[in-house]
Amino acid sequence: MNEPHTVLDKGWVQLEEMMGGDEAVIRGARICYQSTSSSSDADERLIRRLIRSEPKHNTVFEHAVFRFSVKCPIFVARQWLRHRIGTFNERSLRYCIAKREYYVPAERENLDAYQKHMERSFDLYQRLLEAGWRREQARGVLGTSVYTEFIWTVNAWSLMNWLSKRYHKSAQWEHRQYADAILGIFKEAMPITAAAFEEYVLKS
Amino acid sequence: MNEPHTVLDKGWVQLEEMMGGDEAVIRGARICYQSTSSSSDADERLIRRLIRSEPKHNTVFEHAVFRFSVKCPIFVARQWLRHRIGTFNERSLRYCIAKREYYVPAERENLDAYQKHMERSFDLYQRLLEAGWRREQARGVLGTSVYTEFIWTVNAWSLMNWLSKRYHKSAQWEHRQYADAILGIFKEAMPITAAAFEEYVLKS
Amino acid sequence: MNEPHTVLDKGWVQLEEMMGGDEAVIRGARICYQSTSSSSDADERLIRRLIRSEPKHNTVFEHAVFRFSVKCPIFVARQWLRHRIGTFNERSLRYCIAKREYYVPAERENLDAYQKHMERSFDLYQRLLEAGWRREQARGVLGTSVYTEFIWTVNAWSLMNWLSKRYHKSAQWEHRQYADAILGIFKEAMPITAAAFEEYVLKS
Amino acid sequence: MNEPHTVLDKGWVQLEEMMGGDEAVIRGARICYQSTSSSSDADERLIRRLIRSEPKHNTVFEHAVFRFSVKCPIFVARQWLRHRIGTFNERSLRYCIAKREYYVPAERENLDAYQKHMERSFDLYQRLLEAGWRREQARGVLGTSVYTEFIWTVNAWSLMNWLSKRYHKSAQWEHRQYADAILGIFKEAMPITAAAFEEYVLKS
Repeated sequence: MNEPHTVLDKGWVQLEEMMGGDEAVIRGARICYQSTSSSSDADERLIRRLIRSEPKHNTVFEHAVFRFSVKCPIFVARQWLRHRIGTFNERSLRYCIAKREYYVPAERENLDAYQKHMERSFDLYQRLLEAGWRREQARGVLGTSVYTEFIWTVNAWSLMNWLSKRYHKSAQWEHRQYADAILGIFKEAMPITAAAFEEYVLKS
Repeated sequence: MNEPHTVLDKGWVQLEEMMGGDEAVIRGARICYQSTSSSSDADERLIRRLIRSEPKHNTVFEHAVFRFSVKCPIFVARQWLRHRIGTFNERSLRYCIAKREYYVPAERENLDAYQKHMERSFDLYQRLLEAGWRREQARGVLGTSVYTEFIWTVNAWSLMNWLSKRYHKSAQWEHRQYADAILGIFKEAMPITAAAFEEYVLKS
Repeated sequence: MNEPHTVLDKGWVQLEEMMGGDEAVIRGARICYQSTSSSSDADERLIRRLIRSEPKHNTVFEHAVFRFSVKCPIFVARQWLRHRIGTFNERSLRYCIAKREYYVPAERENLDAYQKHMERSFDLYQRLLEAGWRREQARGVLGTSVYTEFIWTVNAWSLMNWLSKRYHKSAQWEHRQYADAILGIFKEAMPITAAAFEEYVLKS
Repeated sequence: MNEPHTVLDKGWVQLEEMMGGDEAVIRGARICYQSTSSSSDADERLIRRLIRSEPKHNTVFEHAVFRFSVKCPIFVARQWLRHRIGTFNERSLRYCIAKREYYVPAERENLDAYQKHMERSFDLYQRLLEAGWRREQARGVLGTSVYTEFIWTVNAWSLMNWLSKRYHKSAQWEHRQYADAILGIFKEAMPITAAAFEEYVLKS
């Protein structure tokens, strides 16, 4: 569960730390009703009802929290960081020098021209730095297929919201690969919640 | 650190779970600069600089997350739940029957009349329930000195913001007692961050 | 639309100001696609599709913003202020003296005892203040059926989320009366969005 | 106030709509204390005290809301969209074809090589589209100095937080130009709040 999972040609996601899990959902729900768990079966039924029922019971899922480490192309990161409920810290190209790593799609026309161009971007980037351009300005020549890295702390409710958007068939294919990897981790980390979410939300 | 801490006459706070801590702040900060920790001294200096410097670096502190369990008077809870960055689940008086527990301030004029009145509130509450009033309506006779319980999941940045408001000398005395107890827990849980916060924010 | 609407026996809601409306939703949606409105029919179809389709397009609805003024029992306000996306400012009983105004439900057993008790609460409150209790402490004897006032600034997406919870048949009856009044205002203020929301969300 | 303000070589900011202003701050503050404005002088002193005093009174400033339209390089937008309290809708390069518009810094070594490279990026982008690459993938060759457009709805408190970070001397020069333009608009739109903010926050 905590190993890095490879995504695309050079990216990955990794679960660094978590708290709560399915137990925290139960904790949040039971305090409202001042009830106690009679059995793990009752707990499972409770979580499934909380996922399924309208209106939504978002808060109880917010007591479970994850921190992921991610490496992905900038164009994926740009969509990802739009999700406002959660915390990101990303490698800064104001302070760091960009690594020569960019996404190369699978076999497709003009792939050679694409790769040559990306290499030339890095050559120019290097040249501008040597000529005294500031890093924050020189980076402007690097395309958004360049890889970036960030960590993401997110609660289970916000994670499910992200999944419902990025695992969706309308999402960009490259982003879906990350959603797929994180869904796999989520299923190991919170098996009851994730199963109910898959059944009642993702598949509906 | 994880034991219940008594607050006021019948209340308490308890740290139920946490993730991250000072290490998560370092993790968040180092990824931006792609730097590595040279020593624990360097880490401490980094955290102190992040707390002190303007503009604020809030995100790196959001990777540390706590879940507290709290019992306090409703009038304290009403202020507390105004803090929007974080998650609360509170015992519901729509679903649960209120317990006969209310806050009694220390020695002061008319304390007898106060206590008699609070007892009569619960007598009437009971009578209304027996007469078929719904719980959610009958609760209207219970004063806000009645105790409530909730759990609170909150990141370290939002916690410090809460402390800066509720530990402040302008805060309600009863609320300050909770801030004082939680500050004590925070100092055990994140010693470097909490020390810097006390020095540069609380005392300034 | 901007008049006060009476709710319960002594409460009200009032729209004080708004910006955006249906036009702001269109503005938000069209910039994504760099498209222009061909007709008001096309705009209406676009909004209806945005409300209906999965995954949700919340951001475009956040450009429409409302400020309401509300007077309601504290037990209603306690639920209302749990909604975190938006801004509340409430009359403070730390600084103001409570007005002798409390909610009286419609005909029901023991109503006399209820009213007598509420009156006695205010008598005691007055006596405690005269004996030198601080306002913030004396308020502890006042039940949550006492009326409070607040203003609420909220965007249309968060408002619809609130409506989906508080207009729901599982919501407390007293709170639903407020949801009903605000739904009426919403339908005048954003006719296309509100109609689509009613059809695809509230009624489903 | 509502005209477009040119920023950098091809960018701009424009205030599209607003609500509230200084009056809304007064409205929010006065409801807490149930006080009434005695004079515009008293109102001005109140706002100045709210900006200056600790702990911060953020909520009262959240009743003033702005919608801006912005055109800026992607590397500026990437920093800007990190600000989570507020709403963005950006032109999507999944759905729209990128315009051949990129930021050119003022006179500096290698500017010719820079411009030639950016032009070649667009040539290749065009070629990839013609070869059947999806827009969302072909955009990967375009550098982050390419211009993008978005609208931003933000309340005055969050706007001041953004200004305190992006108008700061440590901010990227290009981003500061946008902060400077928006500060100018803010001063026209909320003269009392903006003056107090400049005096007590920006200059301290």
